[in-house]
Amino acid sequence: MTASYEILDLHTVAPRLADLPDVRSRLGGRSVDWRIREVGDGNLNLVFLVDGPEGTVCVKQALPYVRAAGPSWPMSPERASFENAYYRAVMPHVGRRIPEIYHYDPDAYCTVMERLSPHVILRQGLLAGIVYPNLAEHMGEYLARTTFFSSSLALPCELKMGAVALFAANQALTRISIDLIFSDPYRVCERNRHTSPHLDGLAAELRADTDLKLAVARFGTQFLTQSEALLHGDLHSGSVMVTADDTRVIDPEFSLYGPIGFDLGAFFGNLLLNYHAQPGHAGKDDDRSAMQAWVLAQARQFWLSFRAHFLGLWREHTRGASGGYPGVMLAEAIDKAAVERAQEAYLDRLFGDMLGFAACKMIRRILGFAHVLDFESIEDAARRAGCEARALDSARRLLTHPEVFPTIDAVIDFLSTPPGSRFAR
Amino acid sequence: MTASYEILDLHTVAPRLADLPDVRSRLGGRSVDWRIREVGDGNLNLVFLVDGPEGTVCVKQALPYVRAAGPSWPMSPERASFENAYYRAVMPHVGRRIPEIYHYDPDAYCTVMERLSPHVILRQGLLAGIVYPNLAEHMGEYLARTTFFSSSLALPCELKMGAVALFAANQALTRISIDLIFSDPYRVCERNRHTSPHLDGLAAELRADTDLKLAVARFGTQFLTQSEALLHGDLHSGSVMVTADDTRVIDPEFSLYGPIGFDLGAFFGNLLLNYHAQPGHAGKDDDRSAMQAWVLAQARQFWLSFRAHFLGLWREHTRGASGGYPGVMLAEAIDKAAVERAQEAYLDRLFGDMLGFAACKMIRRILGFAHVLDFESIEDAARRAGCEARALDSARRLLTHPEVFPTIDAVIDFLSTPPGSRFAR
Repeated sequence: MTASYEILDLHTVAPRLADLPDVRSRLGGRSVDWRIREVGDGNLNLVFLVDGPEGTVCVKQALPYVRAAGPSWPMSPERASFENAYYRAVMPHVGRRIPEIYHYDPDAYCTVMERLSPHVILRQGLLAGIVYPNLAEHMGEYLARTTFFSSSLALPCELKMGAVALFAANQALTRISIDLIFSDPYRVCERNRHTSPHLDGLAAELRADTDLKLAVARFGTQFLTQSEALLHGDLHSGSVMVTADDTRVIDPEFSLYGPIGFDLGAFFGNLLLNYHAQPGHAGKDDDRSAMQAWVLAQARQFWLSFRAHFLGLWREHTRGASGGYPGVMLAEAIDKAAVERAQEAYLDRLFGDMLGFAACKMIRRILGFAHVLDFESIEDAARRAGCEARALDSARRLLTHPEVFPTIDAVIDFLSTPPGSRFAR
Repeated sequence: MTASYEILDLHTVAPRLADLPDVRSRLGGRSVDWRIREVGDGNLNLVFLVDGPEGTVCVKQALPYVRAAGPSWPMSPERASFENAYYRAVMPHVGRRIPEIYHYDPDAYCTVMERLSPHVILRQGLLAGIVYPNLAEHMGEYLARTTFFSSSLALPCELKMGAVALFAANQALTRISIDLIFSDPYRVCERNRHTSPHLDGLAAELRADTDLKLAVARFGTQFLTQSEALLHGDLHSGSVMVTADDTRVIDPEFSLYGPIGFDLGAFFGNLLLNYHAQPGHAGKDDDRSAMQAWVLAQARQFWLSFRAHFLGLWREHTRGASGGYPGVMLAEAIDKAAVERAQEAYLDRLFGDMLGFAACKMIRRILGFAHVLDFESIEDAARRAGCEARALDSARRLLTHPEVFPTIDAVIDFLSTPPGSRFAR
């Protein structure tokens, strides 16, 4: 591709790809014969699928504005460079859990990558009622590896500080997170919307709940101040593509250094959103209770997978051979059991962070700017509002009463108990 | 000054300053008549004092190696640029609490600044038994203002991320902090030294104290992962210059984004070191008990001053006019008292951080590479070791039993109670 930034269209994609020998041979044949479709359905980018006689690729280009809002909401296409930087950083540790990157053009803010096929977006698979047996295990391991190897536990401070500085330039998308996740849903704001009038009262109640807002403020502050590990930054179920046995993570353009619980909570919270939405998709033959139970079991398994993999990596790297901290300092520790207890306490803290960030993510998807298909595709507004209200209720409880959720089983028990039979608050 | 980096000496300082019209007119007369002395006594830099007929300036140049170790321990002089960046960042908020900067030459890593006179280094004043009535109030306010205005509470995320990225390049000095404060004192390491053989046993005991090491590891990890505010990074009593009523902070070359408790703890911990050293300086006419009590009272007052000023700034900026977080989000909060309780809880957390980092700083000055004059100037080794052992004992208690120090008065009571009459541990 050339150095100039022009927005790609169905006519300009092929000539540009033809300039890349590796991509050209991957597609095969003549560029005029390549079949090109634009399939982007996210908020921010163009996505082209290109089919040649011998192969296929995906082309993603960052637009200079928010696609969901139009050119009146400008946004630097620089985010493509952070997406690329994230892919490069995690690739050695996660292998095929991300798409293969064939080419990145920094001037066109454009990535040419593996077309994932027959993968579908996880959110759509879950809504279709499809189960993915490896999903929780894959995602737990993925986050354990991406976060552990980018943290101070594994990286010498020089490398970590360099990475922090690089991703600290991703300001535009961090501003979106701060506004849309941690601020707007808790105040009267033009960008907000919710199922109305059904949720009008609940939205007002949340805006007036000081304890809830203080809890959200603590997590927002943690998001802004804790550079614990490299995060995907937007790891909802629209950023994961799946087949029956494969799992891939895409779209890391919100990547930044932040609290590990933020990525954990994004995925966990989106499973919980789906859990709460399932009854809204019940039909005559299927009340969706089995799917709902499966989704909840995945949330549990996701945490257990993350925890086991993270602790495993930590034990392997405990002697500080990597130059991370506190490896060397603890290498001479006498009481190995105490060190293990401290590592478990660290994971307990991450668990609490996951729950809090998950709850923040749930609330913003119901009361804020960007909603999720899990609820949006429930056509009957009253039915949708019922599901949403139960999700809001759960999220509020997670944020304001963290002390009653010390373990994953306490969370699962709470969620699987019908609201009417829970103890009074 | 020219763009070339050459190490300054007594002959090259004057011609270089003569090229700066502002500095030349400040000194007055002809450059050949200026009186020049090299007075650097720190670990890292050259410091020249230049007297002219009409005025005087101070010239500080970063050397490309650790002065205390010689050219065999190379170190990038880039640190001068972080010192300059820190001074520029805090200047609008602290006014004359830092020296006036006349000129910074990025190519020569050289700062021309106000010569502080008749100021002396605080550490030396305290050792001479001089009291400074404004010290604690000044330093508490200084840290409240430098940290509040550089934090997410005051800065929009874009400005804070930009600052984080800038200071994340100060890798060489952060490496020193991680090694010398948070690692070396807790393992067998060539760079360490202590008063021997008196403290041999205690040093070995600390190296084998897993609980202590895990507490230090938590603070080291917090230092590496929490970008809460812009820190001086080395705020011991050698980085403060005083007169009877003035207080100035110098030497911020270790500046970085980190936990507020790290700066608080540096100053607090160095007051505690001085407190423990005072008996070692007792003479026939003065057992130093009055000075010791005064130093301890300053430690208390320092915390109270910081706390009051920080809360005051937060209340003033609570509506988020600055673009900081969570200002706007809490602007509509109904329960003002709950918000104030949350702010006080935040300060309680900073208090705990201060104690932990203070203790880390105390231990490294007794068992690590760089020691302090407070103890070093006690000639009798047994007497010095006695003072040092009591300081180590206090620090260890602060780190391993934080739950018994919920308030500043609990800390002061503990320190002012003779070890023999404390409850058994």
